[in-house]
Amino acid sequence: MPPIADLPEAHVVVDWGTTSFRAVLLSPDGAIRERIETGDGIQFVDKGAFEATLLRLLSPWLAAEGALDIVLVGMVTSRNGWIEVPYVPCPCTPGDLAGGAIRRRLSNGSSVILLPGINDPARKPFPDVMRGEETQIVGFGLENTATIVLPGTHSKWARVADGRISGFRTFVTGELYALLVLHSFIARAAGAQGDGSPAAFARGIADGATDAVDGDAMLSLVFAARTGMLAGALAAGDIRDYVSGLLIAQEFRQARACGFFGEGERIGIVGNDGLNRRYADVARHFGLEVVAGSEHAAIDGARAILAAEKGPRHDAA
Amino acid sequence: MPPIADLPEAHVVVDWGTTSFRAVLLSPDGAIRERIETGDGIQFVDKGAFEATLLRLLSPWLAAEGALDIVLVGMVTSRNGWIEVPYVPCPCTPGDLAGGAIRRRLSNGSSVILLPGINDPARKPFPDVMRGEETQIVGFGLENTATIVLPGTHSKWARVADGRISGFRTFVTGELYALLVLHSFIARAAGAQGDGSPAAFARGIADGATDAVDGDAMLSLVFAARTGMLAGALAAGDIRDYVSGLLIAQEFRQARACGFFGEGERIGIVGNDGLNRRYADVARHFGLEVVAGSEHAAIDGARAILAAEKGPRHDAA
Repeated sequence: MPPIADLPEAHVVVDWGTTSFRAVLLSPDGAIRERIETGDGIQFVDKGAFEATLLRLLSPWLAAEGALDIVLVGMVTSRNGWIEVPYVPCPCTPGDLAGGAIRRRLSNGSSVILLPGINDPARKPFPDVMRGEETQIVGFGLENTATIVLPGTHSKWARVADGRISGFRTFVTGELYALLVLHSFIARAAGAQGDGSPAAFARGIADGATDAVDGDAMLSLVFAARTGMLAGALAAGDIRDYVSGLLIAQEFRQARACGFFGEGERIGIVGNDGLNRRYADVARHFGLEVVAGSEHAAIDGARAILAAEKGPRHDAA
Repeated sequence: MPPIADLPEAHVVVDWGTTSFRAVLLSPDGAIRERIETGDGIQFVDKGAFEATLLRLLSPWLAAEGALDIVLVGMVTSRNGWIEVPYVPCPCTPGDLAGGAIRRRLSNGSSVILLPGINDPARKPFPDVMRGEETQIVGFGLENTATIVLPGTHSKWARVADGRISGFRTFVTGELYALLVLHSFIARAAGAQGDGSPAAFARGIADGATDAVDGDAMLSLVFAARTGMLAGALAAGDIRDYVSGLLIAQEFRQARACGFFGEGERIGIVGNDGLNRRYADVARHFGLEVVAGSEHAAIDGARAILAAEKGPRHDAA
């Protein structure tokens, strides 16, 4: 990421998701001065109560600083949030994202900027969508042609090049993992055990990454969590890590089939869902060089989008 | 299936699974005289109480007929059931299954025969297993080289030839469907609605069967249940049938990759989980000719295994 021109005033970036509210107060040069993190996700906020909730949660900073520029990203910009900000289609630049933002002046004089999510009309059968991750992708940097992965409940794989997000695809790996270990035949076998078996995770990667004839048969490979127990090869405490490795390796196989990477290439891994190290392990198993994104990618991205507001826009064909 | 020699006496076949108990009283020629079906699955039976439970549930027939030959199949033969019957390895004949059975004489003079499940040591990373379905496969018939599918929570794909079950593979499609529609982002979207949208099911088949670059990317394709809603292309009431079609089509793609069928071949579909018509629709989409198994395949199979008890055995290499 090239240096971002300092923004004129102290400002706030809020990642306001379904289950949490995470705000940072930034100096003009982007340094983090303070944080406020609460469980006030948008699912707990009445439709008409977003402004009041925001002013209440940020009241310590507003009392000290007066009116502030507040950037909002995440599900707060969705149909179920405060104001629905329409998706900006790929390929798109930071300037396009700035152009798609919606501004509101609040009762205390603060300015709120709701950043848009993006969609990818090239994806079949329906356009894929993200809302929040695009800001982290911008924060990672768009200068070099690259594939960037954002691990999570619904992980996102994106291609960037020439200052644009070219396209992306969602994989529901994290959610499927949770469903399997909490609610399935695997849950009954694994019980509540199993945190931290690196050997079981590695075995899951190897079995999920197989280039054998059944490498694409995920619906069948998953059953190995049971047959491995029956064969005495997997202990109850191994199951969760084994399934984690198996599913993430399957995600990489499937992403490779979709053209996201080839042997020996570089891959960026960005995010803060606690999965980055697992994804980096799997990436290296697939012969990839890992470039770790900054933990402040969302902040960097929000600032870059603000800075681009007056810059050139890209008009999708 | 060639005619099975009449067995000498009236006899009983019980499919005793995790959640249900289903018994039929048969004439020597195999005709069903009566049925008893209850919710006394093995998970509700204390380890030492299987004999007493069986005698209680069958007491009307035992009172009328005296001692009976009783064939038990299903999870009652597993570690969590009455007596654990070791798996018989593939390839295997009905005679091998008879040879692996365990007999017990009960207090009332009845004879109980617990039939074994089978495993497939050729499956990697661990041997695959089934317990109960092998009896239905035998009932379908082993004379002709064929692929047989048994739809279910954990559907089974088997190859048969030369009077043997050659090998098989489990796909957890039914369970994954239930997890997605009951517990995931799809559940929230679909709500309690959605039974019977043939058009949505057909659309799911088409999208799940795609030969496009992303046809193997199941972790991503599943997200279409959300993006289709966002795009206005899928109504809430369509979601369940759409996901059903998508997942079963993915199962067929994956089974094809594993070598279970090629274009224009025949496929047998056996079972009574209410999914056979759905599987037949998908099979035809993949250019297969469907041979529907008898609804009495389990009974036919149990009788064939009993009849083979004195027949030639196959010794696995």
